[in-house]
Amino acid sequence: MVDYKLLHALAAVIEQAGFERAAQQLHISQSAVSQRLRLLEARLGQAVLIRSTPPQPTALGQQLLNHWQQVRLLEAQLTRQVPSLQDGAFNNLRLAINADSLATWWPKAMASFSQRHELLLDHVVADQAVGLERMRSGEVAACICEHAQPVAGARSVYLGQMVYRAVCSPAFAQRYLPASQASGQLVASELQAAPAIVFGPDDRLQHRFLLEQGLRAEFAQHVCPASEGYVELVAAGLGYGLIPQIQIEPALASGRLLDVVTGWHLSIPLYWHHWRQGGALLDALAKHVQHVAQHYLAA
Amino acid sequence: MVDYKLLHALAAVIEQAGFERAAQQLHISQSAVSQRLRLLEARLGQAVLIRSTPPQPTALGQQLLNHWQQVRLLEAQLTRQVPSLQDGAFNNLRLAINADSLATWWPKAMASFSQRHELLLDHVVADQAVGLERMRSGEVAACICEHAQPVAGARSVYLGQMVYRAVCSPAFAQRYLPASQASGQLVASELQAAPAIVFGPDDRLQHRFLLEQGLRAEFAQHVCPASEGYVELVAAGLGYGLIPQIQIEPALASGRLLDVVTGWHLSIPLYWHHWRQGGALLDALAKHVQHVAQHYLAA
Repeated sequence: MVDYKLLHALAAVIEQAGFERAAQQLHISQSAVSQRLRLLEARLGQAVLIRSTPPQPTALGQQLLNHWQQVRLLEAQLTRQVPSLQDGAFNNLRLAINADSLATWWPKAMASFSQRHELLLDHVVADQAVGLERMRSGEVAACICEHAQPVAGARSVYLGQMVYRAVCSPAFAQRYLPASQASGQLVASELQAAPAIVFGPDDRLQHRFLLEQGLRAEFAQHVCPASEGYVELVAAGLGYGLIPQIQIEPALASGRLLDVVTGWHLSIPLYWHHWRQGGALLDALAKHVQHVAQHYLAA
Repeated sequence: MVDYKLLHALAAVIEQAGFERAAQQLHISQSAVSQRLRLLEARLGQAVLIRSTPPQPTALGQQLLNHWQQVRLLEAQLTRQVPSLQDGAFNNLRLAINADSLATWWPKAMASFSQRHELLLDHVVADQAVGLERMRSGEVAACICEHAQPVAGARSVYLGQMVYRAVCSPAFAQRYLPASQASGQLVASELQAAPAIVFGPDDRLQHRFLLEQGLRAEFAQHVCPASEGYVELVAAGLGYGLIPQIQIEPALASGRLLDVVTGWHLSIPLYWHHWRQGGALLDALAKHVQHVAQHYLAA
């Protein structure tokens, strides 16, 4: 039998991003946390943790975390059936989600479900292109990403399309795209020289946009890894950027933001992935997310 | 003389979070990037990079990155004086900023400055309690944080106070704080049992709030490391949370959000830190930020 006390220490160090906070969470001393991890590694004969800042799991550590997540979900299911087993009032779910979903439709979608199931959500923000890595590594029990193919042991359901518009402020258009504005026709050299805003190294949307215009995917760029800040920087005229249409409908209607290329948009499919052995709560959540996503995403 | 080609490779691997993208950024092959890093390590006789995913600098690597940032800033200053030296139209600045500033006053503050100086901003989001670590490690050339004391080689200026309110939705108050609502007086046991939303492991605002109410800093919590998602999750009733007043004034006025404890607020001072040797651009930016922050932050 696995010693779950040791796995719990590993999970706490990763989730809390450090030994000190893991100790606080577990209500034990920091040296007791270190001791549990050393004991775990001694039993396995291999390292489970890279002692970096923050600590990172090794490949073996990730397998253990994956197992830990699944056991916790099964426990959550069991304690609903046998409430006397329960040691706390809430269930926990760790999931990877793209920042644009988190900033738009996700909070509305989760309001009733989270309350009905006393579910605490631990969101890990990851680009829709790479969220699946977090599933594969066992760091999360569910994720939203653009890939349909589930990892081993998981299943996926289609949610819908997130529609992106390439937009900028009127002042930005006047400054960087004057000939395009005057002619109503994109002048490619203007766009190539204009600064964009990207969300982070995993965000390739702006690159795709430029390639589709027949331009090079090399450009001057600001980096802003925060959804609301991103929209505000675009609105303030620092750069152009791709933003979910549902996030900026009022700004588009009022003319506060303009399309960089009239009529252009990009649709990114989104899928919900979850562990197959995650129990009834995770199954119910998948159904719920699929149902409500229809109201917010394009078919 | 330092071989800057090698430092540039190191900086690209860290900024792009991987060898493949560093190679793309530098327009060289991935094996050429690896080779430059091996050469750098061979010359120094020490590792500069931990080969984790994403790669992390060693302590020595961080010192090199720090030096690299400062040299780049000095180059930016020089090329403004000698424009023919310039190889690109834009200057670059990497800075650490708290998510709440990025979601509220920062974009407005930077609009004119960024355009006037053709400055591209690379934002690293870090909690105001820990942003200074990014300065110390040499990862950024400037930061916004709550500590006044600058690190060696840097200076700091006071920006103002970010005022936080502890808020929840009316439905949340009805469900988790019914007696407090009915009596207009906080019933401590209700608050202790209510779920909060925290931004991440570095966010201790909710803990401070509970301690100030005489409660334990242990509580059921959602985690949401994204500012707009955070506000929306609070509005959707998943938990209560501390939010900058400037971000929710309309929601407070309309009654969409309520104070958890009537009249309570928390003021967090914010300071701008920047490298002393960062050149005229960084000096001008510090003055500009200090000037505009007055309009948005409390004195």
